[in-house]
Amino acid sequence: MDATSVPAAGSTALLTDRYELTMLQAALRSGAAHRRSVFEVFTRRLPAGRRYGVLAGTGRVLDAVENFRFTSAQLDWLAAGQVVDEETLRFLADYRFTGDIHGYPEGEVYFPGSPLLTVEGSFAEAVILETVILSILNYDSAIAAAASRMTAAAGDRPVIEMGARRAHERAAVAAARAAYVAGFAATSDLEAGFTYGIPTTGTAAHAFTLVHDSERDAFRAQIDSMGRGTTLLVDTFDLREAVRTAVEVAGAELGAVRIDSGDLTLLAHRVRRQLDELGATDTRIIVTSDLDEYAIAALAAAPVDGYGVGTSLVTGSGQPTCAMVYKLVARAAGPDGPLVPVAKRAAGGKTSIGGRKWAARRPDADGVADAEVVGTGQVPADLAPHLVQVPLVKAGEVVGREPLETARERHARARAALPLSATQLSKGDPVLATELQV
Amino acid sequence: MDATSVPAAGSTALLTDRYELTMLQAALRSGAAHRRSVFEVFTRRLPAGRRYGVLAGTGRVLDAVENFRFTSAQLDWLAAGQVVDEETLRFLADYRFTGDIHGYPEGEVYFPGSPLLTVEGSFAEAVILETVILSILNYDSAIAAAASRMTAAAGDRPVIEMGARRAHERAAVAAARAAYVAGFAATSDLEAGFTYGIPTTGTAAHAFTLVHDSERDAFRAQIDSMGRGTTLLVDTFDLREAVRTAVEVAGAELGAVRIDSGDLTLLAHRVRRQLDELGATDTRIIVTSDLDEYAIAALAAAPVDGYGVGTSLVTGSGQPTCAMVYKLVARAAGPDGPLVPVAKRAAGGKTSIGGRKWAARRPDADGVADAEVVGTGQVPADLAPHLVQVPLVKAGEVVGREPLETARERHARARAALPLSATQLSKGDPVLATELQV
Repeated sequence: MDATSVPAAGSTALLTDRYELTMLQAALRSGAAHRRSVFEVFTRRLPAGRRYGVLAGTGRVLDAVENFRFTSAQLDWLAAGQVVDEETLRFLADYRFTGDIHGYPEGEVYFPGSPLLTVEGSFAEAVILETVILSILNYDSAIAAAASRMTAAAGDRPVIEMGARRAHERAAVAAARAAYVAGFAATSDLEAGFTYGIPTTGTAAHAFTLVHDSERDAFRAQIDSMGRGTTLLVDTFDLREAVRTAVEVAGAELGAVRIDSGDLTLLAHRVRRQLDELGATDTRIIVTSDLDEYAIAALAAAPVDGYGVGTSLVTGSGQPTCAMVYKLVARAAGPDGPLVPVAKRAAGGKTSIGGRKWAARRPDADGVADAEVVGTGQVPADLAPHLVQVPLVKAGEVVGREPLETARERHARARAALPLSATQLSKGDPVLATELQV
Repeated sequence: MDATSVPAAGSTALLTDRYELTMLQAALRSGAAHRRSVFEVFTRRLPAGRRYGVLAGTGRVLDAVENFRFTSAQLDWLAAGQVVDEETLRFLADYRFTGDIHGYPEGEVYFPGSPLLTVEGSFAEAVILETVILSILNYDSAIAAAASRMTAAAGDRPVIEMGARRAHERAAVAAARAAYVAGFAATSDLEAGFTYGIPTTGTAAHAFTLVHDSERDAFRAQIDSMGRGTTLLVDTFDLREAVRTAVEVAGAELGAVRIDSGDLTLLAHRVRRQLDELGATDTRIIVTSDLDEYAIAALAAAPVDGYGVGTSLVTGSGQPTCAMVYKLVARAAGPDGPLVPVAKRAAGGKTSIGGRKWAARRPDADGVADAEVVGTGQVPADLAPHLVQVPLVKAGEVVGREPLETARERHARARAALPLSATQLSKGDPVLATELQV
């Protein structure tokens, strides 16, 4: 592996907390670096009141692990800053992950204690992946969990992701991806379309109306350019007048109107009535403006054809991250040999359970999920068909890559297999209890 | 400008909502694309209870505007997906921003209505920068606002940023940068050190203790590698025993111990007493574990020497984004000519004030800031020395680039010039009223 062959922008190697490299250095010196180790990603709790978690970002983790290579520029910087010593720099220059990763497949639901990702390799090669793995899974899963509540609330109506302006510009792309996994129909973010093939969509902003001499001129310009199927933004000046102008200019073939302010339930009813009176019975109504899952649910009885969601999606609807941790749960005395369970056990919380875990989602007689069973040791025969983890990386080679559509379909299936109360928006306990068999 | 000369990873051109490009297409056809236009970034309100905002991200905005160039691959993708027509693709292939940008300098405080960024150019060249500018400023400023409250609460004690694992992996780098502007001493994020020169720091994780056969072995390994000045993590098993072992292994020269769980006030007192009894009177105590500005303030009387902050920093301590918008406030009838103020004026909120704004921070007789005065038209002579905006881009050339240290020093000065109640953590109104002179 020639370090210089990695493009700096693509390298994920410095998306890493400094202590991982200094631990690596100390472990190389003590010899512990070569001990076979098992790290596990899990969360001790769901955000307060949430009934299920949604795992997203797995595909991005696989890319990040593949691209975890140090460039010459990065190594030079580490050397110049005396972050680590010569021996450690040599290790990093040759670094590639050669171990195994198993995990919940992307789009799966999860519960407290679910072993979401199990990373097995030498201590050295596994410990330095902590930060980038957690960054990706914690953010993407926070977005997916919020998105799943929104698509559940929206039922058959499409939900469009349009939150890029309220998130870090690259986080926004990941948010669009996670939202798509959780059932969003499309995104406004072009980079998410370019990078992940997610459908993109868009209407127009108030600025477009304001730069023209009149609303009529703006509507005509948009229809001349985009056709009558476009979506006209009708709340720049007077809503009623705008809807009338829109149908005058576009005719009854007008695709949709967008309302971006005011009492959306009231306005949707008014606009629907007006559109129908004008003969534009097929013109759809899209609403946007600080929607979240509760606002979407409240609009269920309103004549709305689609929702655009921004801020609350990209900020996880009040829960902008997850509490996933990356913990050493077992290690051997050397590169091989039997694994010994290990765990923090200080008083004051943050304790965990040692040992490599398996997880099974046990169904009841009707096929509805009944419990999340998490155990160590031998898997009971009756649970073997219901194991949740799948292989993702084998001996350093990614084996778990899949199309985003697959994760999206998996999420829809996994959510549908939960007890009905899973998609209640009111606060409650996790809809499945985690049973420990350790 | 040859589109193919832009590296894809560096291009910010697709960090853009689709509607910006379709508005561009329609405006190119209607002719409005060439109208001289002024867009303004501002926020209608601060997050509930917050007393001041902190602008961060300006330096990243300047990079993003410079790198807003479309690559061949991006243009091909736009063409294949029929996002825009041929004429628009030609415009995008040649695109570079040629207008002017003024704005609040990075690190400045702000208030509702402050004109944070003023972008002036043709409608076409300015409208398509909306999303990437807002993404950067909304995220970075949310982090800086939280960070500023934390550093104010910490007083002279250093605060370390260590939230990378709780944020999108690239957002984490921006968060470290914004926190540094707002007075954080260092970050754990190596990429933030590599990219922005921010000091990096780190200790060790519980995994490092657990991979060794005993805590003593782990401490010895760390000290052998990092020296006696290192920070030992002492809460893996029994805190009291760990502190004793730490001083036995390192001697009284031990740099610091880190406590990452439990009742930190109580434990800090106990550990301080124990360290002093062991003669390690200069060994510092670093605390981490879900700290926010309130927890930091509550530890003011505890014998703590430094704070590590993660989750609450990178999620804006409950306010993970800002409500900044990018609005057309004035435009001419053509490429030149007098600017006409424009504004949305529908009922139901989200209205704004037309016209290009200036802003001045008027001091009282003692030099303490007294009001944020925002106006249109002529600047009153007595306010001219107190204007806040500075030139950032002139005729497409960046003129406002500065070292990050400059922004950091500016923030400290700007915060110190606010009324004393600015740094109260309790909820309250903005500490300066915005006076409109329009």
